[in-house]
Amino acid sequence: MYKQYINGRTVKGHGKPLTVLDPATGEAVATFDTATAEQAREALEAAQSAFKTWSFTPINERIGWMLKLRDACLAEKEKIIALVTAESGRPYAAATADFNWFLISLAYYGEEVKRLNGAVIPTLNLPYGGTYYLVERRPIGVVVGHLAWNYPLGNAGIKIGPAMASGCPCVIKPSSETPLSLLYVGEIAARIGLPAGVLNILSGPASEVGSALNRSVIPKMITLIGSSETGLRIMAEGATSVKKYSFELGGNAPVIVMDDVEIDKVAASIVAKKTGFAGQTCVNYNRIYVHEKVYEPLCAAVARELKLAGFENDAKYVCSPLINRKSRDRMFELIDDAVKAGAELVCGGTVPAGREKGNFIVPALLKNVNDSMRVSREEIFGPIVPLQPFSDLDKALKQANDTVYGLSAYFYGHDSRDIAKALRTFEAGEIFVNGADGNELIPHSGTKQSGVGCDKSTWSLEEYFDFKTIALVP
Amino acid sequence: MYKQYINGRTVKGHGKPLTVLDPATGEAVATFDTATAEQAREALEAAQSAFKTWSFTPINERIGWMLKLRDACLAEKEKIIALVTAESGRPYAAATADFNWFLISLAYYGEEVKRLNGAVIPTLNLPYGGTYYLVERRPIGVVVGHLAWNYPLGNAGIKIGPAMASGCPCVIKPSSETPLSLLYVGEIAARIGLPAGVLNILSGPASEVGSALNRSVIPKMITLIGSSETGLRIMAEGATSVKKYSFELGGNAPVIVMDDVEIDKVAASIVAKKTGFAGQTCVNYNRIYVHEKVYEPLCAAVARELKLAGFENDAKYVCSPLINRKSRDRMFELIDDAVKAGAELVCGGTVPAGREKGNFIVPALLKNVNDSMRVSREEIFGPIVPLQPFSDLDKALKQANDTVYGLSAYFYGHDSRDIAKALRTFEAGEIFVNGADGNELIPHSGTKQSGVGCDKSTWSLEEYFDFKTIALVP
Amino acid sequence: MYKQYINGRTVKGHGKPLTVLDPATGEAVATFDTATAEQAREALEAAQSAFKTWSFTPINERIGWMLKLRDACLAEKEKIIALVTAESGRPYAAATADFNWFLISLAYYGEEVKRLNGAVIPTLNLPYGGTYYLVERRPIGVVVGHLAWNYPLGNAGIKIGPAMASGCPCVIKPSSETPLSLLYVGEIAARIGLPAGVLNILSGPASEVGSALNRSVIPKMITLIGSSETGLRIMAEGATSVKKYSFELGGNAPVIVMDDVEIDKVAASIVAKKTGFAGQTCVNYNRIYVHEKVYEPLCAAVARELKLAGFENDAKYVCSPLINRKSRDRMFELIDDAVKAGAELVCGGTVPAGREKGNFIVPALLKNVNDSMRVSREEIFGPIVPLQPFSDLDKALKQANDTVYGLSAYFYGHDSRDIAKALRTFEAGEIFVNGADGNELIPHSGTKQSGVGCDKSTWSLEEYFDFKTIALVP
Amino acid sequence: MYKQYINGRTVKGHGKPLTVLDPATGEAVATFDTATAEQAREALEAAQSAFKTWSFTPINERIGWMLKLRDACLAEKEKIIALVTAESGRPYAAATADFNWFLISLAYYGEEVKRLNGAVIPTLNLPYGGTYYLVERRPIGVVVGHLAWNYPLGNAGIKIGPAMASGCPCVIKPSSETPLSLLYVGEIAARIGLPAGVLNILSGPASEVGSALNRSVIPKMITLIGSSETGLRIMAEGATSVKKYSFELGGNAPVIVMDDVEIDKVAASIVAKKTGFAGQTCVNYNRIYVHEKVYEPLCAAVARELKLAGFENDAKYVCSPLINRKSRDRMFELIDDAVKAGAELVCGGTVPAGREKGNFIVPALLKNVNDSMRVSREEIFGPIVPLQPFSDLDKALKQANDTVYGLSAYFYGHDSRDIAKALRTFEAGEIFVNGADGNELIPHSGTKQSGVGCDKSTWSLEEYFDFKTIALVP
Repeated sequence: MYKQYINGRTVKGHGKPLTVLDPATGEAVATFDTATAEQAREALEAAQSAFKTWSFTPINERIGWMLKLRDACLAEKEKIIALVTAESGRPYAAATADFNWFLISLAYYGEEVKRLNGAVIPTLNLPYGGTYYLVERRPIGVVVGHLAWNYPLGNAGIKIGPAMASGCPCVIKPSSETPLSLLYVGEIAARIGLPAGVLNILSGPASEVGSALNRSVIPKMITLIGSSETGLRIMAEGATSVKKYSFELGGNAPVIVMDDVEIDKVAASIVAKKTGFAGQTCVNYNRIYVHEKVYEPLCAAVARELKLAGFENDAKYVCSPLINRKSRDRMFELIDDAVKAGAELVCGGTVPAGREKGNFIVPALLKNVNDSMRVSREEIFGPIVPLQPFSDLDKALKQANDTVYGLSAYFYGHDSRDIAKALRTFEAGEIFVNGADGNELIPHSGTKQSGVGCDKSTWSLEEYFDFKTIALVP
Repeated sequence: MYKQYINGRTVKGHGKPLTVLDPATGEAVATFDTATAEQAREALEAAQSAFKTWSFTPINERIGWMLKLRDACLAEKEKIIALVTAESGRPYAAATADFNWFLISLAYYGEEVKRLNGAVIPTLNLPYGGTYYLVERRPIGVVVGHLAWNYPLGNAGIKIGPAMASGCPCVIKPSSETPLSLLYVGEIAARIGLPAGVLNILSGPASEVGSALNRSVIPKMITLIGSSETGLRIMAEGATSVKKYSFELGGNAPVIVMDDVEIDKVAASIVAKKTGFAGQTCVNYNRIYVHEKVYEPLCAAVARELKLAGFENDAKYVCSPLINRKSRDRMFELIDDAVKAGAELVCGGTVPAGREKGNFIVPALLKNVNDSMRVSREEIFGPIVPLQPFSDLDKALKQANDTVYGLSAYFYGHDSRDIAKALRTFEAGEIFVNGADGNELIPHSGTKQSGVGCDKSTWSLEEYFDFKTIALVP
Repeated sequence: MYKQYINGRTVKGHGKPLTVLDPATGEAVATFDTATAEQAREALEAAQSAFKTWSFTPINERIGWMLKLRDACLAEKEKIIALVTAESGRPYAAATADFNWFLISLAYYGEEVKRLNGAVIPTLNLPYGGTYYLVERRPIGVVVGHLAWNYPLGNAGIKIGPAMASGCPCVIKPSSETPLSLLYVGEIAARIGLPAGVLNILSGPASEVGSALNRSVIPKMITLIGSSETGLRIMAEGATSVKKYSFELGGNAPVIVMDDVEIDKVAASIVAKKTGFAGQTCVNYNRIYVHEKVYEPLCAAVARELKLAGFENDAKYVCSPLINRKSRDRMFELIDDAVKAGAELVCGGTVPAGREKGNFIVPALLKNVNDSMRVSREEIFGPIVPLQPFSDLDKALKQANDTVYGLSAYFYGHDSRDIAKALRTFEAGEIFVNGADGNELIPHSGTKQSGVGCDKSTWSLEEYFDFKTIALVP
Repeated sequence: MYKQYINGRTVKGHGKPLTVLDPATGEAVATFDTATAEQAREALEAAQSAFKTWSFTPINERIGWMLKLRDACLAEKEKIIALVTAESGRPYAAATADFNWFLISLAYYGEEVKRLNGAVIPTLNLPYGGTYYLVERRPIGVVVGHLAWNYPLGNAGIKIGPAMASGCPCVIKPSSETPLSLLYVGEIAARIGLPAGVLNILSGPASEVGSALNRSVIPKMITLIGSSETGLRIMAEGATSVKKYSFELGGNAPVIVMDDVEIDKVAASIVAKKTGFAGQTCVNYNRIYVHEKVYEPLCAAVARELKLAGFENDAKYVCSPLINRKSRDRMFELIDDAVKAGAELVCGGTVPAGREKGNFIVPALLKNVNDSMRVSREEIFGPIVPLQPFSDLDKALKQANDTVYGLSAYFYGHDSRDIAKALRTFEAGEIFVNGADGNELIPHSGTKQSGVGCDKSTWSLEEYFDFKTIALVP
C-alpha cells in the first residue's frame, strides 16, 4: 500500500519490506517495500530533468501547485493526523501541530519567494547607467533532504516548501521510523498531478538509499535534520561533486534559571517542554542549571507539575511514548547512571502501569545532577528533567558552553545585565529567554557542531539559490 | 628569510626547503623552509585561542588593526609589488593591481562589517513588545583559507579582509608557487604587533600542511580558491567535523559575440583579457563563439590586435610568462591538439625570441575551433584565443552550458531580446555583457561545479557568521 | 441608503444631498446625504481614540480583520462590481479588476507587514553586547486618505490595506464622483463588527469635509491620489501641525516608439491603453513620439486597431464613457485645439450613435501632433491617441522631460543602448519598456511635481510608520 | 570678510550687515553683509543647473570631492574650531566634537551611497526573464537646508553629506546666531574648486532669505533642524510646489529613573547631559522622573556632581554660556516660575562671578518640580536640572507621553519587564536606556510633533532620492 513517489508516479519499492511499529502499542502500523539505490538514482534523474522546466515555471504557477498540495492534504486532515500519531506516537494535539506546520510551510514559502528580491548595485566609476549591476538568484538545482522522525510532516514541510518555491526539484527521504505519513503525501501529490520529478519521496535504508542519494553528482544541495554523526557521513559520501550542505544536527541545550524568576511559571514551562512528545526534540532542555536560591522551590514545583502529566489527551501535560523500545530503555540507563553518580530520582522513571506494550515511561525528575553524568553529556531525547544548582552565572555559562553543540540555549531571569550576559555568552544558534518560542519567520540554526545553514525563515529559502550576478554595459 | 607567521610571531618552518622560481627567468627568487603539519595544528590552536578575544573585540578596534596592516603594507608598496612580480611573473601594472586589491579589501570589509545589520522580526500573536525577536550574527569561528597563485595578494585580501572584520581568526595557506609576498605580509603583521593568532600564514605542501588544516576539527569554515578537484579533496578530508565550505573553483567561460557588435572594440577586449597575466585567471574567456556574420572580420581584428601584445611594460597589451614551465608546455599541447583536429593556428604559439629561459609564449590565435578540442574541454589558463563560429544563438547557448562548470559567462551584443535570452539561459554565477567588469561590491561566485558560496561583496562577509537568533519575553 | 461610516457605525450624513450619476446613461444611480466638517472631526477623533488599541493589537489579529473584510466583500462581489460600473462607467471587466485589486491589497499588506523587519545595528566602540541598537517602527498615527474617482475601490485598497496592516486608523474620503461602492464597503465593515474607529469612510465636498480633515491636527499623514493642485491645497491647509504627505498626483506620460519595434504589437498596446476605461488613468499615454521610420505604418496600424474598439463587453477593446459630461466635452475642445493647430483627426472624436445620453466618445486618432497643442501640454485623461513623429532620440527624450510632471514614461524598442539611454534620461518615477506592467510588489510613484512618497509595494507600507530607535545599555 | 557662497564663488551679501556676538563675552566676533532674497533665488538656480551634471557624476567622483572638502577643512582644523567656539560659546572639546562630526558625515555618507542598493523584484506571472523589475533611485533634486545654531558644523554635515553623496545640489542656510564657521567652509569649498552650484551657503534673515528659499518651486526637498513653529511656517510657505519635508524639530524629553539604578552613575550622566553646551540640545533631558525610593539620594548625588561643573576647560563638567542674553534671562524666568509654584532651588541659577559680560549661568538643580511648571511644559534648552519624584511606572510613562513632542526619551533601570514597558510605551522617535548614545549609523528622528523624516543613518540618505522603478520586457 505505501509506495515510493518517483517522477510523478507512486511505484512499489524494489527493496526489502519494512514494518513500521506504533510506539504506543508496539504493534505494526503497516508494512511496505522500501526503495533501492537504483530507485534513488531514478528519482534523482527525474528531479534533474524536472529542474529545467520547474525552475523556469512562473512563480505564481509554482505557488499554485503548493497551495493545491496543501488543500489536498487539508482535505484528508484527520486521516493524515492519525497516521502521524500511529507511526510516531505523537498524541492528537502534537500530531495536529505537526500536520499544521507542514501546511504553514507550503503557504509561507510561496509568499516568501515572491519577496526574495535581488539587488541593483550602484556603479561607482561611471555615470549612472554606465553599467548595470544586478545580483539575482538562480535556483541551485536538485536538492536531497534527509529527515528526522520526530516531526514526520513538519520537518518535511520546511524542505519541500522552499524547494518547490525556489524552483528546485527535490528528493526527500523520511526517517525509516516514520515514513508513512509522508509517503501518503506523495500519493496525494501523484493524485493531484504535480509535475513529474518536482517532488520525490523515497523510504529505504540510509546505507543504501541514503548513500546512493549522497554519492550522486546530481544533487547540488543536501539537507539533513539529524545527528552530527549522520552529517559527517553525508559530507564524506557527498565529496563526489561540489555540493552545498544545510544541516540541522544534534544539540545539548543548556537552561539557566536565575533567582528572580516566577518559580511556578518556570516549572510549568520545564514540564511542558520535557513531556511534550516525551521531550524528543533537538531543542529540548538538556542541562538545567538553577540558581541555588530557588533550587529547592523549583525542584518542588517541577515535582508538583509532573504529577499533572499523563498519557491521555485530557492531561494537563500529555506525554507520548518514546519512538522505540531501545530509546525507552536508554532512559533507564541514563537514570541509573545518574543515580549511581549521586543524583536523586525524585519521581518517575518507571513504566506506567497498563502501558507495558508501548514505549512509555513516566517522566522523571533528577535532582543534584552534575555535568559528568550521561544525562548532561548526551542529548537525552526523552522525558527526564535533570536539575542542578549553581551559584555563579559566569560559571554556569561556562558550563553551558562546554559541549561541542550549539543549537538552542535557554535563560530565565529578569535583570537586564544578566540577560545581556547570557545573550552575549551563550554559544548557540538560538537563545530563548523567559519561555519565548519561534515561528516560521524565525531562523532555526545551530552553531559549532550543531549544524550549518538554517531552517525556517527567509534565510532558509535563500539557501536554495546560487547567485546570478549580471554586469551589463548597454 | 621567509618565515611562517604563527600565533603572532614569525618562525622558521620545520619542513623541507622550497625554492620559488621566477617565471620570467626560471631563476630562484628565494628558498625557505616550509611549514609542517605540526605547525599547521599549532596555528589552528593559536587561532582557536584568539577567537575568544578577537570575536569580542569592538568593531572599531578590529578595523583599526586592519587599517594599520594596510598602512604598513602601503609603506613598503614597491618592495611588495616587486615580490609579486618576481614570484608570479605579473608585470608591474598587473602586480600593482594585485597589491591594490589587497589594500582595498582591508578597507572595504571594515566599512562593510559596520553595516551588517541584524533583523528585528515582528511579533505576530502578541501585542507589540510581547516578545522580541532578534536575528543577530555570531562570528563562525576559525577559518582556513587555501589560495591560488594567480593573485598572490588579491586572493589573500578577500579572505583576510572578511576574517578580520568579522572577528574570525584565520589560517591562510598561499599557493606553493607564490608564497613569498604573503609570507612577507605575515612579517609585517608581526612587526605591527597584530594580536597573536588573529592571522596565521603558512606555506607548505598541500598533502601535509593543507591536509592537516582540513582534517582538524578546529576550523569552522574552509575557503578555497582553486580547482574543483582540490575542492572535493578538501571536503573529503574535512568530514571530521561539521564545517562550512566556501569555494571558488574552476571555470570554462563561454563568450558569445553577436553580429551587431562593434568589432574592433570586442577584439580589443578579447586580446586584453587573454594576454593580461597571460590569461591565467579563472574567469578568462575559454570558448569564444562568434556569430558567423562577423566571424571573419573579428578573427582579422583579433589577429591585428595581437600584434600589439608584447612582454615589455610599454606594450599596448602586456603579456606575462606562464606560471611554470609545465604550464607553458601544456599550451603547446593544447595548440597541437587543436591543429591536429582541424583548427588553424593564425599566429603565435611560439617561444618569443630572447625569452627562452622563462615560461613565455607568444599569444596564439586559433580559428575554426570546435567543442571537442582540448582548448574547449579544458580550462586553458593561458594566452590562446580560440574562435569558433556559430549561426544560431539558442544552439550557441546550449553549447555554452554544456560543461560541468558555471563560473563566468560573457556576451557581446545589443539586441535586448538576445541579451535577455543570454541572461536567462547562461548557467553561470556571473554574466558580463559588453565588456562590463566587477568590483569589490559585486559578488564573485560560481554555480554547478564552479563553487559554493561567494567571494567579494557583502554576501561573502556574511559567510563568516552563523546566526544568533534571540527570542526574548521580557 | 448610502451612509457615512464613522466610529464603527453607519450614520446619516448631516450635509447636503448628493446625487451620483451613471456616466453611461446620465441617470441618477443614487442620492445620499453627504458628511459635514463636524462629522469629519468626529471621524478623526474616533480614529485617534482607536489608535491606542489598534496599534497595539497583535499583527495576526489585525490581519484577521483584513481577511474578514475581504471575505465579506467577496461574498457580495457581483453587487459591488455593479455599483462600480454604475457610478464610474467602468465596463464589467474593468470594474471587476478594480474590485479584485481592492481584495489583493487587503491580503497583500497583511502578508507584508509580517515581514517588515527592524534592524539591529552593530555596536562600534564597545564589545559585542555593550549596547544594543534596534531600529524598530512605530505606526505613525491617524491617516487621512483622499481618493480619485478612476479606481473607486482599487485606490481605496492601497490606502486601507497599509493603514489596517500597520496599525494606523484611517479616515478615507472617496471622490464625490464615485463614492457609492466605498460607502457600501463601510456598510460591510460595520456589519462584520470591525473595531470602531479603525476605518472611517466619509463622502462630502472637498471644501468642507476635505478641508476639515486637512486642517485638523489629528492626522499624522495625509495621502492623496489626485491632481497636483489638490496636493498643494492640502499641504497649505495641513500646515497646522507636523504631518507627513504621500501624494500620487498628475502625470503627462511620454511614450517613445523606436524604429525596431513590432508595429502591430505596439499599436495594439497603445489602443488598449487609450480605450481601457476611456484612457482615464494617471499613467496613461499622453504624448506619443514615434520614430519617423515607422510613423506612417504605426499610424495606420493604430487606426486599424481603433476600429475594433467598441462600447459593448464583447469588443476587442472595450471603451467606457467619460466620467462626466464636462470631461467628455473637454475631449472635443482638445481635438479642436489640435486640429486648428495643424493636427489631422484620422478617426473618432464623435459621439457614438445611440449613446447620446451618457458621456461616450469614439476614441480618436490625431496625427501630426506637436508639443504646443493642448493634448500635449495637458493631461488628456480620455480616449485620444496623439501621435507625433521624431527623428532623434536625444531630442525626443528632451521633449519627453519638458514638463513639470514625472509619473510614468514609456519606451518601445530593442537596442540596449537606446533602452539604457531612455532609462537614464527619463525623468519619471516609473518607466515601462515594451509594454511591461506592474503589480502589487512594484512601487508606483512620481518624481518632480507628480508626487511624493509611493503607493503599492513594501515601500508604501513603510510610510505608515515612524522610526522607533532603541539604544540600550543593559 | 565673511561672504556668501553661491554658484561656486564667494560673494558679498547684498543685504543688511549682521554682527555675530561671542556668547562668552558679549563682544562682536565679526560683522558681515547678509544675503538677500534675490541671492537666495540665484543660489537655487545655480543648484538647479548643477543638478543635471552633479546627479550624473560618477559616485566615486562625488566621493572624491567630499573627501577633498573634508581634507581641506582638516587642514584648518584649529582655526575652524576657534570660530565655532567664538560664535556658539562651545568650549574647546565641544567645538572639536562639532567639527569632527562634520568630517565624519562627509566620509560616512560617501561610503553609504556606494551601498544604497536598488532591488530586483521577482516576476510573478511570467517565466524568469519575462519581465525585469528594477527599483532604482533617482536623486530627488535641489535640497534646501535650514540649520539650528547649536551644532554649527555638525548639523551642516548631516545635510551636506547626504546631499553631495546622493547627487543633490543644496542650498544651506545656517542660523543667524552661528553662521561664521559654515560661511568659512563655503570659502574653503570655493578654494578647492568644488563644482559650481553643488553646495551653496547663505546667511540672512529667515523672513527674507529663508522665505525666498521656501517659496521657490525649485527645491524638491526642504530639511530643517529647528522648532516645530518654524517647521509649520516652512510647510505653509512651501506649498507653491510639491516638496518633500524632512524636519527634526523640538522635543521635551522625559527621563525615568527606576529604583534599581546605580545612583552615582545616573547622577553623573544627568549632570554631564545638562551642563554640556549648557544643555542646549534638542535631545536634552527635560523632565526627570525619579522613583521615590531613590529620589532623595539622587537629588543629593546630582547636587554633589554639580559642584564639579565649571566654565574652564579643566572642569569635570565644562559648562558653556547660553547662546544669547535672552536665552540666559529665560532661565531665570523658568527658575522663578518653578520656585513660585513650589519647587526648591537647591543650587545654581545665578550669574557666575566674573562672567557677567557673557551669557553664563551656574547650572541649577530644582527639586519637587511638577508637570504644570514651565520647566516641564517648555523645552528648557539650558542648564537646569528639574527632578520630580514618582511612585508608579505606568503613571510616570503616561506623564512622560503627555506632550505633543516625541523626539527622545530616556530610561534608567535594569528590570527587563520595566525596560520593555518603557520601550513599548514611550511615544518617542528614539529611546535611550541606561545612558546609551548614538552614532552616525543610528537614525535620529522624532514622532508626533517632533518631526518628519530622519537624520543620520542610511535612512536619512534615502530621503534624498525618489524611486525610479523600471519594468522592462526585453
